Amino acid sequence: MHELRKDPIVGRWVIIAPERITRPVTVTDNEPVANPEDFDPFLEGHEDATPHEILAYRNPGSRPNGPGWRVRVVPNKFPALKVEGELVRRGDGMYDKITGIGAHEVIIECPHYETNLSRLSVEHIREVLWVYRDRLVDLRRDPRLVHGLIFKNKGALAGASLDHSHSQLIVSPIVPITIQEELEGSEAFYRYRGRSIFSDMIQQELATDTRVVLDTPNFVVLCPFASRFPFEICILPKQHASHFENISRQAIEDLGQVLKTVLRKLEFALDDPPYNFVIHTAPFDRQELPHFVWHMEIFPRLTRVAGFEWGSGFYINPVPPENAAKFLRDTPVD
Amino acid sequence: MHELRKDPIVGRWVIIAPERITRPVTVTDNEPVANPEDFDPFLEGHEDATPHEILAYRNPGSRPNGPGWRVRVVPNKFPALKVEGELVRRGDGMYDKITGIGAHEVIIECPHYETNLSRLSVEHIREVLWVYRDRLVDLRRDPRLVHGLIFKNKGALAGASLDHSHSQLIVSPIVPITIQEELEGSEAFYRYRGRSIFSDMIQQELATDTRVVLDTPNFVVLCPFASRFPFEICILPKQHASHFENISRQAIEDLGQVLKTVLRKLEFALDDPPYNFVIHTAPFDRQELPHFVWHMEIFPRLTRVAGFEWGSGFYINPVPPENAAKFLRDTPVD
Repeated sequence: MHELRKDPIVGRWVIIAPERITRPVTVTDNEPVANPEDFDPFLEGHEDATPHEILAYRNPGSRPNGPGWRVRVVPNKFPALKVEGELVRRGDGMYDKITGIGAHEVIIECPHYETNLSRLSVEHIREVLWVYRDRLVDLRRDPRLVHGLIFKNKGALAGASLDHSHSQLIVSPIVPITIQEELEGSEAFYRYRGRSIFSDMIQQELATDTRVVLDTPNFVVLCPFASRFPFEICILPKQHASHFENISRQAIEDLGQVLKTVLRKLEFALDDPPYNFVIHTAPFDRQELPHFVWHMEIFPRLTRVAGFEWGSGFYINPVPPENAAKFLRDTPVD
Repeated sequence: MHELRKDPIVGRWVIIAPERITRPVTVTDNEPVANPEDFDPFLEGHEDATPHEILAYRNPGSRPNGPGWRVRVVPNKFPALKVEGELVRRGDGMYDKITGIGAHEVIIECPHYETNLSRLSVEHIREVLWVYRDRLVDLRRDPRLVHGLIFKNKGALAGASLDHSHSQLIVSPIVPITIQEELEGSEAFYRYRGRSIFSDMIQQELATDTRVVLDTPNFVVLCPFASRFPFEICILPKQHASHFENISRQAIEDLGQVLKTVLRKLEFALDDPPYNFVIHTAPFDRQELPHFVWHMEIFPRLTRVAGFEWGSGFYINPVPPENAAKFLRDTPVD
């Protein structure tokens, strides 16, 4: 019984996905990811070790679920949400719940064994980004689903259970609370000032220039003013766009290079740290929004999260973003 | 330069506390906490290894900063916020910041080497709770400060850097966002229905009885309906009270036993897991609130947080709270 449940006080939705484990509890703290010598189900030639592919960018003449692909998308073997079934919203006394309908996919980023997305060619990284786009475009046609979250867990300490480079997509019938809060916050700003808070931010950041890591024709990369974590990074498009899946060819060309450069800087500066990234994009059921801009957030896992952050939303960051940005700017990538 | 900074989009405050580390980055993932053989600065007789005490419950005839105490409070050696200085709120273009004024204290829970609060006597645990209360009552008189957050990190993986049992208190000039969201959510419910959402919750939970772990004269202990983490636990007072520091003697008597029992259940059921707890209480500058009830949240650290939760606020919990509650109910503590 997969289920989405809403916290009645703060309105946060949680996925209850009991089938993801068989034991009642798993303590997975220092568990290493699979060794390179271990069987790698994401390797070219091991296609039968995964569920049937949903999408693959393939070389001419190759066949589905066989070798010859460059980027490949398969259903998650232990999905948090499932496509099959009816979307039922119902109450349980004072509580609200929804059946666990949605999609949970794995994007295998390359056919050979490689742990770091940043080590793929720029052209290959662009293909991964195109795959992100294609999956969102496909899934937004399902009227039951309203939001798509693309994210990556790199390294065991960032939550990866396999180290062959991959990312994931969770498409859900609700808008995750962080996206909801960003939508509300940016809309309030827009109502009050008549302009996008993201443009103001880009303008101020480029003017002060202390938190900017990279500035390209289409993107600004910065360490946010109120960074929760050391070396937190935000990639912001300069041209207004609320939905990632509407990204232009030109922007993807640029983003491929930007992502490679930023990840290499992180890896060189911080000795190949575990990290997460996530793409924040507007809900499927909203038209282009004047107040919201899609963006990418990257969190290296450097400090142990003291845990009281969960209980308070109160983060203590020992590295000022100005220092982090300078360190990253000064880190050569070649 | 300690500083509080506000995220301009979602309104979350972050503490930038660069003096907490000397190196630009610390990777602290698998770092063990101090061994029992290591020097323990929290031990009776080692009082000169900590800053001067702020408060101590002492045996008759003993002297401040010497042996003879049972519970002892000292300033954190690496404080996130500091008492000294002027509270200055100012803008920085579109951004808001406040000087890092506040208090960050350590509550040393016992004079002998003990890692688990649960192994102290009920009487001793009550004294720890009285100390929590006393520190809040003292600090709320400072007009610069509006909120006090009591929390505990147990075990290295929960963020503890010393394993001698202790908790912490951060008192700040702003209300942490999680508390703010609970205040707003519960106030909206109160405006709409004219009653406290906490009473409704207690009523429904006791009636359905599937998520209740413990039911005592003064408290209900439950695994919340929309638990983010496996075996997440909430201790709720039955009698309406928005401020922990106004707790009655009778309630503290009961809470000491409740906390001991719940922690022992957790430890027996889950093999002494790392955990965090945090007390959510109303801001100092608000009178008794009809819509909010102080409570205690406990989070064992069982699953690796996949990290995308940070980016999305979207939690995946593999253990239904009904299963967790049953497991805890069935775990004997003697």
